[in-house]
Amino acid sequence: MKNTAKLLLYCPDRPGILAEVTDFITVNKGNIIYLDQHVDRVENVFFMRIEWELEHFLVPPEKIEDYFATLYAQKYRMSFRLYFADKKPRMAIFVSKLSHCLFDLLARYTAGEWHVEIPLIISNHTDLQPVAERFGIPFHHFEITRENKAEQEVRERELLAQHGVNFIVLARYMQVVSEEMIAAYPNRIINIHHSFLPAFVGAKPYHAAFERGVKIIGATSHYVTTELDAGPIIEQDVVRITHKDEIEDLLNKGKDLEKIVLSRAVRKHIERKVLVYKNKTVIFN
Amino acid sequence: MKNTAKLLLYCPDRPGILAEVTDFITVNKGNIIYLDQHVDRVENVFFMRIEWELEHFLVPPEKIEDYFATLYAQKYRMSFRLYFADKKPRMAIFVSKLSHCLFDLLARYTAGEWHVEIPLIISNHTDLQPVAERFGIPFHHFEITRENKAEQEVRERELLAQHGVNFIVLARYMQVVSEEMIAAYPNRIINIHHSFLPAFVGAKPYHAAFERGVKIIGATSHYVTTELDAGPIIEQDVVRITHKDEIEDLLNKGKDLEKIVLSRAVRKHIERKVLVYKNKTVIFN
Amino acid sequence: MKNTAKLLLYCPDRPGILAEVTDFITVNKGNIIYLDQHVDRVENVFFMRIEWELEHFLVPPEKIEDYFATLYAQKYRMSFRLYFADKKPRMAIFVSKLSHCLFDLLARYTAGEWHVEIPLIISNHTDLQPVAERFGIPFHHFEITRENKAEQEVRERELLAQHGVNFIVLARYMQVVSEEMIAAYPNRIINIHHSFLPAFVGAKPYHAAFERGVKIIGATSHYVTTELDAGPIIEQDVVRITHKDEIEDLLNKGKDLEKIVLSRAVRKHIERKVLVYKNKTVIFN
Amino acid sequence: MKNTAKLLLYCPDRPGILAEVTDFITVNKGNIIYLDQHVDRVENVFFMRIEWELEHFLVPPEKIEDYFATLYAQKYRMSFRLYFADKKPRMAIFVSKLSHCLFDLLARYTAGEWHVEIPLIISNHTDLQPVAERFGIPFHHFEITRENKAEQEVRERELLAQHGVNFIVLARYMQVVSEEMIAAYPNRIINIHHSFLPAFVGAKPYHAAFERGVKIIGATSHYVTTELDAGPIIEQDVVRITHKDEIEDLLNKGKDLEKIVLSRAVRKHIERKVLVYKNKTVIFN
Repeated sequence: MKNTAKLLLYCPDRPGILAEVTDFITVNKGNIIYLDQHVDRVENVFFMRIEWELEHFLVPPEKIEDYFATLYAQKYRMSFRLYFADKKPRMAIFVSKLSHCLFDLLARYTAGEWHVEIPLIISNHTDLQPVAERFGIPFHHFEITRENKAEQEVRERELLAQHGVNFIVLARYMQVVSEEMIAAYPNRIINIHHSFLPAFVGAKPYHAAFERGVKIIGATSHYVTTELDAGPIIEQDVVRITHKDEIEDLLNKGKDLEKIVLSRAVRKHIERKVLVYKNKTVIFN
Repeated sequence: MKNTAKLLLYCPDRPGILAEVTDFITVNKGNIIYLDQHVDRVENVFFMRIEWELEHFLVPPEKIEDYFATLYAQKYRMSFRLYFADKKPRMAIFVSKLSHCLFDLLARYTAGEWHVEIPLIISNHTDLQPVAERFGIPFHHFEITRENKAEQEVRERELLAQHGVNFIVLARYMQVVSEEMIAAYPNRIINIHHSFLPAFVGAKPYHAAFERGVKIIGATSHYVTTELDAGPIIEQDVVRITHKDEIEDLLNKGKDLEKIVLSRAVRKHIERKVLVYKNKTVIFN
Repeated sequence: MKNTAKLLLYCPDRPGILAEVTDFITVNKGNIIYLDQHVDRVENVFFMRIEWELEHFLVPPEKIEDYFATLYAQKYRMSFRLYFADKKPRMAIFVSKLSHCLFDLLARYTAGEWHVEIPLIISNHTDLQPVAERFGIPFHHFEITRENKAEQEVRERELLAQHGVNFIVLARYMQVVSEEMIAAYPNRIINIHHSFLPAFVGAKPYHAAFERGVKIIGATSHYVTTELDAGPIIEQDVVRITHKDEIEDLLNKGKDLEKIVLSRAVRKHIERKVLVYKNKTVIFN
Repeated sequence: MKNTAKLLLYCPDRPGILAEVTDFITVNKGNIIYLDQHVDRVENVFFMRIEWELEHFLVPPEKIEDYFATLYAQKYRMSFRLYFADKKPRMAIFVSKLSHCLFDLLARYTAGEWHVEIPLIISNHTDLQPVAERFGIPFHHFEITRENKAEQEVRERELLAQHGVNFIVLARYMQVVSEEMIAAYPNRIINIHHSFLPAFVGAKPYHAAFERGVKIIGATSHYVTTELDAGPIIEQDVVRITHKDEIEDLLNKGKDLEKIVLSRAVRKHIERKVLVYKNKTVIFN
């Protein structure tokens, strides 16, 4: 696998951006292997994701960011991020007691489906320690009470920093994470909510769905922001139910949805295909 | 097509109901051609829909209701409804300005897809009068203002009564119907709401969905109750969208959803396959 | 609505194409309002759709094709097509006896959903003449027998030519169209097949699906080629069924699928968002 | 959890069956907690699944089968099966090299999602031995060549018999099982085929789907019969793809489908909710 650079950017839409950026890469002998762009005509914002092979690229990897910032980002008032394929993102998983999402994440990791490292799992309970051990991933238990929460999260963040964690996946983690944690990982904490948001925000959504008598239930994966279940949505999916489905059936059908939806969102994040703008996501394909 | 009786009932669940009801029909030489039952184990309620041919049935059609009430409904504290296949339900359509649902309903009606009569269309605007005329259905215009609403609805109800209307379909009718109207047609007014309820109740749901950045939009058909968009849900469906979809795209994709979801709900209602219990529906298959 | 040019092209992938084409438009003061591109890495082919406003564009509309061919198409060995928004495509509908797709197409046309003209409807039966009349579209009846087929099609093509028809929609037209007709409208005859192709090619697919006991049925819209039901697929969709669904239920559920799938395909075609390459389609979004 | 009896049956449809069977249970003080029936009006066959609590049932469990056969099965020419909830079915998993389905099955097993025992895993390769060990399930390797296949299958069947295996799940097992094996487990070998059957029977369906340019791919779980990929379908599902998806994307999206579809089918089988009749399934809900 050849090393590549992945550039994600957005800026006010103006003629010529796309031509200039592709030209910069082509002229410097980069072989573009992916390009997707989007113009938000309401906000008048241009979004782009471009990936190119570095083998013959004339600008050394460590200087690309600086060059690009100087030559283009200033001119076009761009926000941009640059990633290299040879640097695997490092992901921490937070869990509580339910195992289905954790198993799904670890099975994919073990099977080599994803280009990612998982240096640790953090939990407020010990129930899933055996699962972590079975997959050989260090498991850290931080019991959370109302009193010790802030303090425990400080310790968690230290641990995350030590392990060079880039982003966090809340795999049915049954604790609201604090503003400090969110500030430390802005648009880098991925949650799975077990409803079709914005319907049934908060606790016990399957019970609420059952009460309401809906004919379809859903799951939503989103970045965590300070407002509960209101962050930018990355992925959603649904499944049909009938009056014959009891709450336990909803829970079971929901579990299958949750793990697939969460894993799709995590994959998109790992592949650097998500851009957040004003509480909404652009998902490059 | 042979004439049949369709019986829908519910009652507290007890052993023997199903056996007794089927026995009543079989012993009297009715040929059962449909049976579906459901037990709600939370509420402990038994639901049933049964249909049988009347050709050799020993109880004359006009006496079935009385016999059944006396012999079984009392004993089991049943709520029940009896319908005959040779009696077509009569449906009124209420519209405003959008034509997609109306066209879909009238195309099915004209093609003979449904066993129903549509004696009239009522509208608070004149925009769709040409559509009604094209299909040869009488069109009645009742302009609605805040001041005349109660009065106009009285006239509408008179007209509906004159035409022997059994149920009403709000095909993107952009007026909240009054409590009096709802009381006159309890669980007999079918609405289509252009969102995946309970998300985005009320006006402009596609705009709200766009704002929120959801990845799936939906449509919901439900019986109208006095609480806005909160009645028993009959049918829902969804379609996937992306960040590339602008509000106009949502409106367009939504239209296709709305008409199909509404028509599915109307079909279920016409076929007498919907039973309402405590703001939820049992949909027999 | 401002006039725009829509350019669809493909060519062997090489660096710089995208930059050059966008540059051509930008430099000549065209305001790009849409751009989507795709690289097929198996075939090494570059695909692109670009749309720009003509208001201030320096090259007069009637010369764009010539300029583009000379300056770029030759150099990059491009196949390309140029369309102008102010020129509505002209579509003929072929039908037989089933009305659901026809009603759906005409309802959209009447409601102004599509930027298209429908100058005529052609049928091998007279059943749907009243529908055509209801919508005010000229209806032409060409009875087809094995003996007169070639001859009748010649007359049909003359009629199509007289009306300046650009493309044909087979809305459940129950006749195989000849090679001559296909040659006259290459990748311009859109069919709806009532199965999830390539499953159940040919006649009576719902019966075949019922026999096989599938749990999902589908519909497929594709361009007609000389091999039956094997042309480039534009759109497909599916719906779930159960063992309780009899053939008539499949037919009914299928009808809803067919009309929606066909209309989605027709919309994509009208919007010039479909490019055919080697019996497959690129569908720009 | 109280012990229950689950009875599945079919027979020629005649009046009174349902009433008699439910009566038998009710009279003998069995509490019916589940009942679903279906009449195939084409074949004129009655299907039924009924489940009741045994706590106060007057007929001792070990005699129910005999009583039922004598009193009803003869009279109505029924085929029937009786299961008890306190007896867990025993399932063997056959795998080759791909891990996604195996992980999904074992995760559910470990989490206690299913009422089943998995005494062993059999494979024609050793690749997945570490996965089996991680979950603590005995793993048996039987290398298969054209020459030794019959002989190895004899040994496999001995092993399955020793472990009291009731049914087999082929979790992407890349070997055609022999007629002898199928005869030993009729309608008890569940396969997952990675296409939307009957499209793309046989090897490399994703490649075939890519070639054909379909817009939706699927997965199908079915009972294995002697005709390849032609057995009774238990469950199917699909996912949308676009021209941008390369074969690798199809493989990835397909994996998620396959594991969910297979697990849904296995759940239905474990819950005794599948009845096979003439190469089609009745799936009780």
